[in-house]
Amino acid sequence: MMKKYNFSAGPCILPQEVFQEASQAILDFNNSGLSILEISHRSADFVSVMEEARNLSLKLLGLENKGYKALFLQGGASMQFLMTAYNLLEKKAAYLNTGTWATKAIKEAKFFGEVVEVASSKDKNFNYIPKNYKVPTDADYFHCTSNNTIFGTQMKEFSSVAIPLVCDMSSDIFSREMDFSKFDMIYAGAQKNMGPAGTTLVIIKEDILGKVSREIPSMLNYKTHIEKDSMFNTPAVYAVYVSLLTMRWMDRKGGVKAMEELNNKKAALLYSEIDRNELFKGYAEKEDRSTMNATFNLTDESLKDRFDELWKAEGINGLNGHRSVGGYRASMYNALPPHSVTTLVEVMQELERKA
Amino acid sequence: MMKKYNFSAGPCILPQEVFQEASQAILDFNNSGLSILEISHRSADFVSVMEEARNLSLKLLGLENKGYKALFLQGGASMQFLMTAYNLLEKKAAYLNTGTWATKAIKEAKFFGEVVEVASSKDKNFNYIPKNYKVPTDADYFHCTSNNTIFGTQMKEFSSVAIPLVCDMSSDIFSREMDFSKFDMIYAGAQKNMGPAGTTLVIIKEDILGKVSREIPSMLNYKTHIEKDSMFNTPAVYAVYVSLLTMRWMDRKGGVKAMEELNNKKAALLYSEIDRNELFKGYAEKEDRSTMNATFNLTDESLKDRFDELWKAEGINGLNGHRSVGGYRASMYNALPPHSVTTLVEVMQELERKA
Repeated sequence: MMKKYNFSAGPCILPQEVFQEASQAILDFNNSGLSILEISHRSADFVSVMEEARNLSLKLLGLENKGYKALFLQGGASMQFLMTAYNLLEKKAAYLNTGTWATKAIKEAKFFGEVVEVASSKDKNFNYIPKNYKVPTDADYFHCTSNNTIFGTQMKEFSSVAIPLVCDMSSDIFSREMDFSKFDMIYAGAQKNMGPAGTTLVIIKEDILGKVSREIPSMLNYKTHIEKDSMFNTPAVYAVYVSLLTMRWMDRKGGVKAMEELNNKKAALLYSEIDRNELFKGYAEKEDRSTMNATFNLTDESLKDRFDELWKAEGINGLNGHRSVGGYRASMYNALPPHSVTTLVEVMQELERKA
Repeated sequence: MMKKYNFSAGPCILPQEVFQEASQAILDFNNSGLSILEISHRSADFVSVMEEARNLSLKLLGLENKGYKALFLQGGASMQFLMTAYNLLEKKAAYLNTGTWATKAIKEAKFFGEVVEVASSKDKNFNYIPKNYKVPTDADYFHCTSNNTIFGTQMKEFSSVAIPLVCDMSSDIFSREMDFSKFDMIYAGAQKNMGPAGTTLVIIKEDILGKVSREIPSMLNYKTHIEKDSMFNTPAVYAVYVSLLTMRWMDRKGGVKAMEELNNKKAALLYSEIDRNELFKGYAEKEDRSTMNATFNLTDESLKDRFDELWKAEGINGLNGHRSVGGYRASMYNALPPHSVTTLVEVMQELERKA
């Protein structure tokens, strides 16, 4: 079988050793003689998986013993778009619009109250991160998106605000060091840096809850899930387990600090080729470039077929850009080996030689 | 490794051949050289999984070409408790209360309107199914629970009602033949007969939607998921895939008809031992006994330690009753081999010999 270089935007590559363990647990979990798919979520073995996953997510972000609770919920970031507003929006919320997902989050929040868009980069099809905006101090919370998978932009600074700060980190959680305690709530669909599709990490400071007057159905209420340690109802057992395996792998490799170093190296390698090679141009503004998703186009569209043939022949996968941007997108999540980026750069150079 | 007999109430046993295929797909899916956990949900390979899963669920229930849509959503039956009401309850809904899960469904519906409890078996701790109740014809829909996992009761008849009929079939879907076209909506958490935890099958007749005046956030709106063929956002890829493998297995084995025959045999074997062996007594009323979950108690509680030792020594797993009932619960879902029931019956007879 030919080696694959998986640049998929998500669900995406996870560490090979995680796949090995994850496959084995389907046949026999913890030497129990049972598959992880057939054990009760109330069994000691799984309760311990859930507890370790919650604790390790906080540890990796440096948020232990700081008043945060970690939850593993279902429904993806899309469910969080409405749950954040359901739980936090009494009158007015402030949102930063940096792309498709931020736009969707704004749409759902509007079901629950007024939304102030503090700034938007829609004027340039979201190829930059707005700066110098003002966040109204009378809003219930401020919501932003740390990394924009589709457009390849990433927030580098998070200014302190006097109101609760909520961040969708679906596509760059665990990818870089930061003082995460400036956030009051962080959420992330698992299927980029954390695990397979099917579970969503929600990290929340309990003191921002209980301030809206509406009644909240049990499953949509963060308090329900906090009280029951993410086990109010049957959780997504296997997705949580594989997320735990992936977080253990990060922890073994040196945590978020080590991930960041590797991610910076991979991103530097690819962006320097994009900037050097005259056949390519980057899509996002340089200062806002994402270390997770590099978006770029050919300067001469007539080379498209030749380039596509070259990278496909090399075993590269998932390089097509999102339809909103076109061109190419190389997603370089934590688990992507640097060698994959080297391979892509070589293909870009081969195109240059043949062009 | 000792052979295990897994009577877990859910998540529960799935066919051994499903575990084999499910484990292999983690290492290499469809000979793609990629894990099913790392491929895009928009890839042709997964789009085809989702399509086949939706179609096969309808085929197994005899609901093809009858105006039904099948969806694979996240959040379990607990999320459906609120979504049914969010989408269908304008003024008043009618609910049959047959146990813990029905009670929870009623609680969530009350967030959205008036709930009429047409009947309840709470007076006898839910050990029977109420009959001869009247369903108000001016209710928006009638909701019932086909099988009560905790109490071991199962509805055998579903009277036709003039209003939309909604049924939570989480713990007995695909277990018996029936004219499923009498239901307007069926939902089921996967983790009993259909697959692993993490996805929920929702089968719905489109014409019952769009009749409430409230606005519905996108993720909670069935119309959103119908329009996008369950791919509005990233679905629970692996849980859907393993559900498909399990449905294919049912289909190969002869479909729901074959499952029913086997389930009836397994249930008859165990219940006849419960009735014959004077050390045991059944919990549920005989006419309402579930073929999926047999609940029973020791007639002499002082034998508890001896019985527990015996079945554990035999490799039996998951036999403890739910705390609301006590005693024992043997869950005999589709994938439980008849030999497991024989083994349990032998242990019950061994206790009798030694008592």
